[in-house]
Amino acid sequence: MVILDGKKISQEIKKEIAETVKSIIAAGKPAPHLAAILAGNDGASETYVGHKEKDCHEVGFRSTVLRFPDSISQKELLSEIVRLNSDNEITGLIVQLPLPGHISEREVIEAINPDKDVDGFHPENVGRMVMGLPAFVSATPYGIIELMKRYSIETSGKNCVILGRSNIVGRPMANLLSQKAYPGDCTITVCHSKSKNIKGICAEADIIVAALGVPEFLSADMVKEGAVVIDVGITRVKADNKSGFRLVGDVKFDEVSAKASFITPVPGGVGPMTRVALLKNTLKSYELKGR
Amino acid sequence: MVILDGKKISQEIKKEIAETVKSIIAAGKPAPHLAAILAGNDGASETYVGHKEKDCHEVGFRSTVLRFPDSISQKELLSEIVRLNSDNEITGLIVQLPLPGHISEREVIEAINPDKDVDGFHPENVGRMVMGLPAFVSATPYGIIELMKRYSIETSGKNCVILGRSNIVGRPMANLLSQKAYPGDCTITVCHSKSKNIKGICAEADIIVAALGVPEFLSADMVKEGAVVIDVGITRVKADNKSGFRLVGDVKFDEVSAKASFITPVPGGVGPMTRVALLKNTLKSYELKGR
Repeated sequence: MVILDGKKISQEIKKEIAETVKSIIAAGKPAPHLAAILAGNDGASETYVGHKEKDCHEVGFRSTVLRFPDSISQKELLSEIVRLNSDNEITGLIVQLPLPGHISEREVIEAINPDKDVDGFHPENVGRMVMGLPAFVSATPYGIIELMKRYSIETSGKNCVILGRSNIVGRPMANLLSQKAYPGDCTITVCHSKSKNIKGICAEADIIVAALGVPEFLSADMVKEGAVVIDVGITRVKADNKSGFRLVGDVKFDEVSAKASFITPVPGGVGPMTRVALLKNTLKSYELKGR
Repeated sequence: MVILDGKKISQEIKKEIAETVKSIIAAGKPAPHLAAILAGNDGASETYVGHKEKDCHEVGFRSTVLRFPDSISQKELLSEIVRLNSDNEITGLIVQLPLPGHISEREVIEAINPDKDVDGFHPENVGRMVMGLPAFVSATPYGIIELMKRYSIETSGKNCVILGRSNIVGRPMANLLSQKAYPGDCTITVCHSKSKNIKGICAEADIIVAALGVPEFLSADMVKEGAVVIDVGITRVKADNKSGFRLVGDVKFDEVSAKASFITPVPGGVGPMTRVALLKNTLKSYELKGR
C-alpha cells in the first residue's frame, strides 16, 4: 500500500513554481499576482485567505487581500470586480466564499473575467473543463488529478466510483476522469444521497473518490482489494486531545488502507493539493496572458 | 412495453409553442426569430437547415438563413456573428456545423452571445447546465429529458447507464440525469470505447441511453427485464429498398423492445424531439429577453 502523500507532492510543486517565478523575475518581469476579495469577517474565511497569502509568499507571487465590511453592497462589490478585471497588475482574482447573505454569490462569480477566474468557478470555465478544452479547473479536482498523475496511477478502462455530486468536487471529478485523457478514460459511476446499493457499487470499483462529507463513510467491506482510494472529506469531530477535535475523512483509514493499493491520508492528502492547485492556476493565468 | 413516441410528443409540443406564438402576436409583439448561419454547401447541412426553417414556419417563428460561400474567412464570419449578437430582431442564433476546414468551429461558437446560443454549445451554457443553473441545454439531451418527462418515467435512485461520452449527447445526459431534479437523481454510469464489461454494466441498468453511433450495438442479452431504453443512434445502412438505405439506431429494436418497459424507436424517437428542442430553446430565449 502506498500513501498518496499530498503534503510532500505539494511541496515539490511549490518548489517548481518558485523556480519558475525566479526565472520570471530574473527576466525583469513582474511576479504573478493573486488578488482575493474577503467580505465580512467569517473566521474560517480569514483562515483560508491567510493560507492563500502564505502560499503566494512562499512561491514568490505577489498577493493582495481586499477586505470589505459585511455591509458592502452587491453593487459596490461588482464594481470592485470590474476594476480588478481590467487591472493588468492582477493575474488571478478570487472571491472568498461565503459572501454576506444579501449578496448573490452567483452574480459575483459570474462577474469575474473567466481569464482571471483561477478558482475555476465561472460557468465558462466549468463548461470548458467539461468539454475537454483548456480551462481553469477548480482547485480540489485539479489537485486530485495532479496527485494521481505524480503517482502514475493507472486510470484507462478502470471502474471509478465518485461518491458525491457537488459542483466543486464530485461533478468535476466525474467529468475529468471520463475524458479521453490521462488521468481519465475511466468508466465512471456517480453516487449520491438518492443512490441505492452504494456498498455493492463501491465494492466493484478500481478507484473510489469519496466526497460526501460523511465522516468515515467508506469502510473496508465496501472496498475491493487493491483499489485506489481518494478521500476528499474533511470533517472536524470532537476528540479528547489538546485542540478538542480531530480531522476525519470520508474513509475509515485504518481498515481501508489495509486493502487499498494507494490511499490519501486525512489530513495531508487532498488538502495540500487543493492549496497548491490555486497557485498552479495563477501561474497558468500569468503564462496565458504573457504576465 | 410502451413506445416513447417522439414524433407524437414533438407535434404536441409544436402545438403548444404555436399557441404561445399566437398570443405573442395577438399582443402586438414580433414573433421569435431564429437565425441560422450556413457556410459552404454541405448536402446534409442544407437538409438540417431546411428542417429548421420548416419547423420555425410551422410554429409561427420568423427564420432567416444566412448563406455564405465556402470561401468566407473566419474574420468575416466572426464579424457577422457580432452583428447578429447585437441585432434585437434576432432571438436565437445558430451556426450549422461542420464549417469549412479553415475556420475554427470553437472560436465561432464562442463568439455567439450565450443569451442567443439556442444550440447550447457555448461553454458558458454547458457550464451552467452542469452546475444546475438556468441554461440553454443542447437539443438532443433537452429533447430526451422532455420525452422522459412527458411519459413520467421514474428516474430517482435508478441506475442509468450512458453509452458514449460525446460533448453533444453522452456527457450532457450524464450531467443532467445526475442532477437533483426531475428527470434526474439517477446513479449514472458513463461507458465509452475504453470501458470494460459494458455488457455486464448494461445488464444492471434501469435506464440505458445508447449514444455510441454503433448500429444495433445493444442486444437483448445486455438489457434487464423492464429497463427504459433511449436510442440516440441513427446510422444509414444499405438496404434492399427504394431509397437504398434504412436508418438504424444503436439498439436491436426488435429483440430489446420485447424486454424493455419503455423504448424509443428509430426513426421517430429522439430525432423529432431534438428538432422541437431547438424551437423550445428559441422560445425560452425570447421569453428571457422580453422579445
